Amino acid sequence: MSKILVIGHQNPDTDSITSAISFSYLQNALGKNTEAVALGAPNEETQFALDYFKAETPRVISGASNETREVMLVDHNEFQQSVPDIEELTILAVIDHHRISNFHTATPLYYRAEPVGCTQTIILKLYKEHQIEIPSHIAGLMLSGIISDTLLFVSPTCTDEDIKAAQELAKIAGVDPEKYGLDLLKAGTNLSDKTAEELISLDAKSFEVNGKKVRVAQVNTIDYMDIFSKKAEIEAAISRQVNDNGYNLFLLVVTNILDSDSRIFATGSSAQVTEQAFGIKLENGEAFLKGVVSRKKQIIPQLTEALSN
Amino acid sequence: MSKILVIGHQNPDTDSITSAISFSYLQNALGKNTEAVALGAPNEETQFALDYFKAETPRVISGASNETREVMLVDHNEFQQSVPDIEELTILAVIDHHRISNFHTATPLYYRAEPVGCTQTIILKLYKEHQIEIPSHIAGLMLSGIISDTLLFVSPTCTDEDIKAAQELAKIAGVDPEKYGLDLLKAGTNLSDKTAEELISLDAKSFEVNGKKVRVAQVNTIDYMDIFSKKAEIEAAISRQVNDNGYNLFLLVVTNILDSDSRIFATGSSAQVTEQAFGIKLENGEAFLKGVVSRKKQIIPQLTEALSN
Repeated sequence: MSKILVIGHQNPDTDSITSAISFSYLQNALGKNTEAVALGAPNEETQFALDYFKAETPRVISGASNETREVMLVDHNEFQQSVPDIEELTILAVIDHHRISNFHTATPLYYRAEPVGCTQTIILKLYKEHQIEIPSHIAGLMLSGIISDTLLFVSPTCTDEDIKAAQELAKIAGVDPEKYGLDLLKAGTNLSDKTAEELISLDAKSFEVNGKKVRVAQVNTIDYMDIFSKKAEIEAAISRQVNDNGYNLFLLVVTNILDSDSRIFATGSSAQVTEQAFGIKLENGEAFLKGVVSRKKQIIPQLTEALSN
Repeated sequence: MSKILVIGHQNPDTDSITSAISFSYLQNALGKNTEAVALGAPNEETQFALDYFKAETPRVISGASNETREVMLVDHNEFQQSVPDIEELTILAVIDHHRISNFHTATPLYYRAEPVGCTQTIILKLYKEHQIEIPSHIAGLMLSGIISDTLLFVSPTCTDEDIKAAQELAKIAGVDPEKYGLDLLKAGTNLSDKTAEELISLDAKSFEVNGKKVRVAQVNTIDYMDIFSKKAEIEAAISRQVNDNGYNLFLLVVTNILDSDSRIFATGSSAQVTEQAFGIKLENGEAFLKGVVSRKKQIIPQLTEALSN
């Protein structure tokens, strides 16, 4: 029997990579033969967590059907965010905290989604339900996922369950969640060695509404100028992606993790729709979004609504 | 705040109706304001269970958006099996044991699916996870769902978890699962007062493969002749449905619950595909399928495969 691959989404973030690791560990403890893999190299934030807790970096794959027939998905379900040959594979399980869209299976499966801030909060429940002990390095990775997805508990996606889970995991991992959390998030804002092209691809998601192709990239920072000082290069990189992929809207969301605000930069034939979506006025394609940090709760639904009209 | 409606699938079977009741009870115990409703009147089997355990028959609705914005789905997810105005509603939760198909949401939700024989087996876990006590009449209804969906534990969809859940629920309900189970299943085979039209609509599901419209109706019996003695009327009723709805294949599956076999009757321009799907030869549109009792495991996947070629 070939291994079951446990896979997070493309442009993996910390939740995606660490959830693959923690869910694979759980499945193996329950007798399955699984391996956590990733659809891209860890970003700086994720690498910080992997190094801190001395965990192995998951193998990067670009397809799965050459080595297995069975996969489990974590932190995503939409096929366009998954391994490109997903349609050829049997999906045994999904653990996720997103909407369900562009997803279907031929047979019944295990699907566990909850409207919480992080996949790891759900995975912690699964460890408890199966009474499997969590090793301290796995707990540290799980905590990292929660801190990353909730921006240290300030995102509107963060629930009481996420906070309680983080506290519990921090205890097992032996770290102070606030102190470790800020170090983790800061590590993710070190983008000095990234090209503009890499920067707008680090954490980007695509979707379609009403025949319009939309891509929303998000970058965390502790100083907007770190990003906007490179605006000309970034503009050029976005224009290339818009042309190459036919996006009607490319939205770059730059989030200040210390102030919990964002600045957006909108490009494409549908860029104006952001004015209606967020009740703002674009200036040179830019605008400030006070209190906005969550793509899932404060960006995608508003864009979807505005594009549906 | 209007009530959240808890809804099973169209042409409701015992699992669908009783899962709406048991999940609604659980949600209300957890502080939500929900009501179990149904997309059709209970069949004879379900009515037997409702009467036996002195439970109220859920209100039948044909749409939900006139009275609520929020629903929870049990025992199904595919929109064509749900309330007709499902696209206008927010789906807060899904508890199911089927494949996922033609399903999508705009926002994150609670989704719990497991590849077990019955929705009630999953709902029992939820009661335990939330430490909510199950009243004996609810336990009886939950047991009825499991017996119905697994044909008293003989269906290949039946798992060890379903059997254990049924034993546990039978104890709370104070019934002998084998004796009560046979009475329940027999009640469902009493179709003497049904017209041919009703008979082929009692438990029927539609889907599309490769542009072909397929409908698979299933009827339980303890004597094939109860059904096939009315073949002329049934044929006429099926022909009407094929013409009215443009089905390429209408498959009637008559399952003998005592012998755990089925006879099928295939109509429509794609009727021949059943020969390839099940490795049989149709005679006057009919064939015998030894050991076949599960539409989900032994009919739909084989038809889907054959129609995909």
